[in-house]
Amino acid sequence: MSSLPPVEPVPAASVAGFDHECDVLVVGFGCAGAAAAYEAAAAGADVLVLERAGGPGGSSAVSGGELYLGGGTAVQKACGFEDTPDDMFAYLMAALGPHADEEKLRLYCDGSVEHFEWFRERGLTFNESLYDAPSWMPPTQDGLMWLGENAWPYNTIARPAPRGHRPATESFGGWMIMEKLVAAATEAGAVAHADTQATNLVIGDDGRVAGVVARRYGAPLTYRARRAVILTTGGFVDSEELLRQHAPVLLGHGKVSDGLDDGSGIRMAAAAGAATRRMSVVEIALTALPAMLTRGMLVNGLGQRFVNEDVYPGLFSVAAVLHQPGPYWAILDEEGYEDIPKRDLWGVRPRFVAETLTELEESLGMPPGALESTVGVYNRHAERGEDPYFHKDAKWLRPLRPPYAAIDPRRGFGAGDRESSGTGVAGFTLGGLHTTVDGAVLDQSGRPIPGLYAAGRASSGIHGDGYISGTSLGDGTFFGRRAGRAAAGRPLPGGTLVTEG
Amino acid sequence: MSSLPPVEPVPAASVAGFDHECDVLVVGFGCAGAAAAYEAAAAGADVLVLERAGGPGGSSAVSGGELYLGGGTAVQKACGFEDTPDDMFAYLMAALGPHADEEKLRLYCDGSVEHFEWFRERGLTFNESLYDAPSWMPPTQDGLMWLGENAWPYNTIARPAPRGHRPATESFGGWMIMEKLVAAATEAGAVAHADTQATNLVIGDDGRVAGVVARRYGAPLTYRARRAVILTTGGFVDSEELLRQHAPVLLGHGKVSDGLDDGSGIRMAAAAGAATRRMSVVEIALTALPAMLTRGMLVNGLGQRFVNEDVYPGLFSVAAVLHQPGPYWAILDEEGYEDIPKRDLWGVRPRFVAETLTELEESLGMPPGALESTVGVYNRHAERGEDPYFHKDAKWLRPLRPPYAAIDPRRGFGAGDRESSGTGVAGFTLGGLHTTVDGAVLDQSGRPIPGLYAAGRASSGIHGDGYISGTSLGDGTFFGRRAGRAAAGRPLPGGTLVTEG
Repeated sequence: MSSLPPVEPVPAASVAGFDHECDVLVVGFGCAGAAAAYEAAAAGADVLVLERAGGPGGSSAVSGGELYLGGGTAVQKACGFEDTPDDMFAYLMAALGPHADEEKLRLYCDGSVEHFEWFRERGLTFNESLYDAPSWMPPTQDGLMWLGENAWPYNTIARPAPRGHRPATESFGGWMIMEKLVAAATEAGAVAHADTQATNLVIGDDGRVAGVVARRYGAPLTYRARRAVILTTGGFVDSEELLRQHAPVLLGHGKVSDGLDDGSGIRMAAAAGAATRRMSVVEIALTALPAMLTRGMLVNGLGQRFVNEDVYPGLFSVAAVLHQPGPYWAILDEEGYEDIPKRDLWGVRPRFVAETLTELEESLGMPPGALESTVGVYNRHAERGEDPYFHKDAKWLRPLRPPYAAIDPRRGFGAGDRESSGTGVAGFTLGGLHTTVDGAVLDQSGRPIPGLYAAGRASSGIHGDGYISGTSLGDGTFFGRRAGRAAAGRPLPGGTLVTEG
Repeated sequence: MSSLPPVEPVPAASVAGFDHECDVLVVGFGCAGAAAAYEAAAAGADVLVLERAGGPGGSSAVSGGELYLGGGTAVQKACGFEDTPDDMFAYLMAALGPHADEEKLRLYCDGSVEHFEWFRERGLTFNESLYDAPSWMPPTQDGLMWLGENAWPYNTIARPAPRGHRPATESFGGWMIMEKLVAAATEAGAVAHADTQATNLVIGDDGRVAGVVARRYGAPLTYRARRAVILTTGGFVDSEELLRQHAPVLLGHGKVSDGLDDGSGIRMAAAAGAATRRMSVVEIALTALPAMLTRGMLVNGLGQRFVNEDVYPGLFSVAAVLHQPGPYWAILDEEGYEDIPKRDLWGVRPRFVAETLTELEESLGMPPGALESTVGVYNRHAERGEDPYFHKDAKWLRPLRPPYAAIDPRRGFGAGDRESSGTGVAGFTLGGLHTTVDGAVLDQSGRPIPGLYAAGRASSGIHGDGYISGTSLGDGTFFGRRAGRAAAGRPLPGGTLVTEG
């Protein structure tokens, strides 16, 4: 780890005088930082926000912009869906699991309608229409999308309702969310210092976090925080060194970030004795086109199916990349291939075509009989509209007939930075500082470190081993808000009372 | 984390006087602690060893006692096997991977013959005979066993040689290794304090670890270490709280430990700013009888094969538990069932028997046609002595003929604590403190924390995501020795020069 810059805490006694002072100091101006800054300022605190880049936004601004919200939002109702916090909770416990954070998730679901309204009050608009097909990101301005709720086994666990809320823009919408949140934080009184990177926590004799040391254009600066520091510095997908130590599965793959998610906040706090949590957990996306996979089958390198192809794409990605031997193939017949919407736009082209499965499996280097037996069983059930293996929706079930095509599935976004990875796989990290539901950072004994909070991907949030789009902007803003209020001394309801020190 | 005892470091200035003093203080008297204590004492240091239990041994003493050694040991040669450090390295990089620690593994393999002789010099004897069948633990006193080296794909990566070295005892041999190592450390001059649990590191004004605070029968004690503290406190499988934060996959399963592996050393060091590494990685064993699986097939809950059944049992365990939907089943025919050695002793009994695969898959709740197609393809290839899916050795390949049996594979040790788990799965943790090859514990900036070393399962060793028996006693003793020598100021060759502070 010789390449990492020092992050050891600095004793307050060694700081001759502070260059800047505030009540609440937020480090990082992505979605969690903006939400925290807004709430702290709205609660009456004097708030400064440090951002190492030239302006606010962070990785949130280059994200897709889905927000995972539900429990009966106005958009859900307008689209004709009934939803409850309990159904939302049951779905997320399963889809973000195993091992999702039950306490955080319960609050997140119970508070989701209020959180949706909070976004609208900050000026975001959501069209009251549903995009009703499997997709990573709809090419429309529909305000609502499915994020796997209607796919097996989740449709047996909770009443399905679409909960992907999208601000009114086509394609990537993260920038629009950040535009509104940054404006809200600023209007509430938070002041941002750009090009300013926090490098070390400052800690008082009493063990309380008292501020940070930072750098701007190479010059050192000191910030005093009278009440608290909130770390919203993001994850660590951009640090090869930290990936090697904690999440090596992402090494060599594409990174979903603004390029600055190097884990600096996690390291600064850990150097002061903070506990981390689930540092190995990642979002990982296989950039495959859902509209292609639903029309055929997704198989592993041995020709075996392993998931219902109509599941949320983030989940077929995890099922493939973390658990199956590659290479992965989409197997389609001519009718399915011709049926793929905007096939050419997405660049979908067969790698191999064959009149028989014997030929095709030979081209793919699979064991003789591998595809033949997989497709044989699939067809036998599909004729009756059934998929007893993985329960793909009957509307996608149809026996495959010659000629057949094998397509490399690692394509499908058509645009966006995920495509830049040669492996067809891209992701980011979900592990981070161990926090209470109010964002208080815990030490190695489970006690809050006085004056220190964290939210967003610098912390471990609602996630277990699974990931659903919209839950990172979702929990970053939700728990960012809670951290902002708690840091300002006016916590939101639902927190556990914690005794500092 | 409210249930965890405080581990925050104590300033040396606040310690009025030390109750005990030494050069090198070893915390934990398992295999790594014993190896470290021996080497530090042999190098001339005044050594104290703290052990929280009533006597030495730790989890090492209740382990199977396999030592993963090779590169051309005397036992390997006597059994007619040629081996090289390079072949050993190539095998372990693959079998302990992906993401095994290349630097530590290189040293481990290059030093393995010397390390074997070191064990013999400490009084351990190894019989010069091979147990030549797949097994978790041979029911013989053979000194050598295969640990997966002759199974696909590993037999294509490195020249196969058996490297499981076993001291001359039947069944679990960990106690015998510990008996010899504890005697060696004691004879070299190390003094042990039993019933003494270290609770906090003591740190000087200069940032150097200066000793520990401990408790014995409820009373506090202080220890000064003039040169260094070596943490060999084991992993954290016995802390539900730490498992929940870092390795939840083990929650609810059996624990392979002495019951005291609660991560206390990892937490003490992390509270002082130490970096951890790969905290999610675990050894996980599905307690299935290898001699049963090789004679049939291992399938997942959907009737799919996923691994060659003759692979090292630790690897079919990982393949199943971490990556496949359960329940798992062993599918055998009558001939295979009758052929299982000591079938009744191991308690192998069919759960279901059937004349046809259609009946059997119905009994197992599998999709219609699932077993039929899996066995169909398997038989087609087995007739020609081939397994193009997973390359099980031809000697195990034979078409399965009716009647068929399905057996719950979660049995097979017949003795030992692993069986006590109702889930049929048991394991321990492999993540821990981030150390150099000499055991120096690194901080969040990648710099050694002066005066602090770690080895064994309190540290992250040679392992990536895979596990092979004998590598934990193996790297615990190997890097325990290096830490002991480095802590005494006389490092062994091959280390990276590190500048303290």
